[in-house]
Amino acid sequence: MSSDFHIKREIRILGIDDSALINEKVMIVGAVFRGGDWMDGVLRSDITKDGLDATDVICRMILRSKHYGQIRAVMLDGITYAGFNVVDIEKIYRETGIPVIVVMRSKPDFEKIKSALKYFPDGEERWTIIERAGEIEKVAGERGKGSIYIQRAGISLESVSKIIRLTSIRSNIPEPLRVAHLIATGIILGESRGKA
Amino acid sequence: MSSDFHIKREIRILGIDDSALINEKVMIVGAVFRGGDWMDGVLRSDITKDGLDATDVICRMILRSKHYGQIRAVMLDGITYAGFNVVDIEKIYRETGIPVIVVMRSKPDFEKIKSALKYFPDGEERWTIIERAGEIEKVAGERGKGSIYIQRAGISLESVSKIIRLTSIRSNIPEPLRVAHLIATGIILGESRGKA
Repeated sequence: MSSDFHIKREIRILGIDDSALINEKVMIVGAVFRGGDWMDGVLRSDITKDGLDATDVICRMILRSKHYGQIRAVMLDGITYAGFNVVDIEKIYRETGIPVIVVMRSKPDFEKIKSALKYFPDGEERWTIIERAGEIEKVAGERGKGSIYIQRAGISLESVSKIIRLTSIRSNIPEPLRVAHLIATGIILGESRGKA
Repeated sequence: MSSDFHIKREIRILGIDDSALINEKVMIVGAVFRGGDWMDGVLRSDITKDGLDATDVICRMILRSKHYGQIRAVMLDGITYAGFNVVDIEKIYRETGIPVIVVMRSKPDFEKIKSALKYFPDGEERWTIIERAGEIEKVAGERGKGSIYIQRAGISLESVSKIIRLTSIRSNIPEPLRVAHLIATGIILGESRGKA
């Protein structure tokens, strides 16, 4: 399932974040980066608050992009978007052929998520998708940067660690996700805020 | 009117671009950069297609931003936004205290603009604002990069040249403007396109 590959300094990475939960439709923003250095493009789509369309919308956004042929990894900010719209990372990998890395600042409280999912008629389906993303692994930060936690599809832990180190220029959050977050909050709220 | 100042490598610059003319309200995006290196924040406002509110909206956007105290220069992509919504760069400088640099890929055809403005009841007022932005000067690109043209308020030509060189990492267009353009087109069209 997982394949190692050579990681160039300018490896193209798509970081995806969502914006504030203001309306029923929630904007997601993709930032196409070359390594941690600069942005090549911006993608935008909309998903449904607490819906189950995030996986398909993300797949479509990737497959339709002019950057599709260049993108070597997709980075997600956690595995739930727009509330409890859970993302099936194995499906994204299968449909696009691009490995997926889920990045988390801290270890998510899956028991809490599982409890919340009980209020959804399709809560079990959502929980299965979360479980399918596999175990949570720790990636140590370097040069005093804090550790982060990851899940992954289609890529080895070693390659994930290399990509995280290469792209975490400004903080312990990789640039594609840091910048996608700035764009998503800035566009919706008028000024960017907080951390990815 | 114009003041020279020390230019640090990480000088904070706000680049502002507009998005496609799809609706009556046109989104403008501000990208707060540190030199040409990385983005610190994203601002968003709306102006009126062919209106005359761009100057005031830009002033408000700057004055309200948490980055206001750090921004040392504002970069505009030409002097007309959202159609013929002309920007009064002297007024922005006066109201915010921040120097303004207008960047143009090629020398604008002011005769053509003047002709078009005849169809506006307040065309003369708009033309006066354009004239007030002063003469167009050429800034030579380095390392094979093409020259660009500029107008300026509150800053010497020498300082403008230094800032342009420092921030034009990827092309002859400074990063704050290149990235503001990617965001503005990406968010409105679903995927970024074209050049700032």
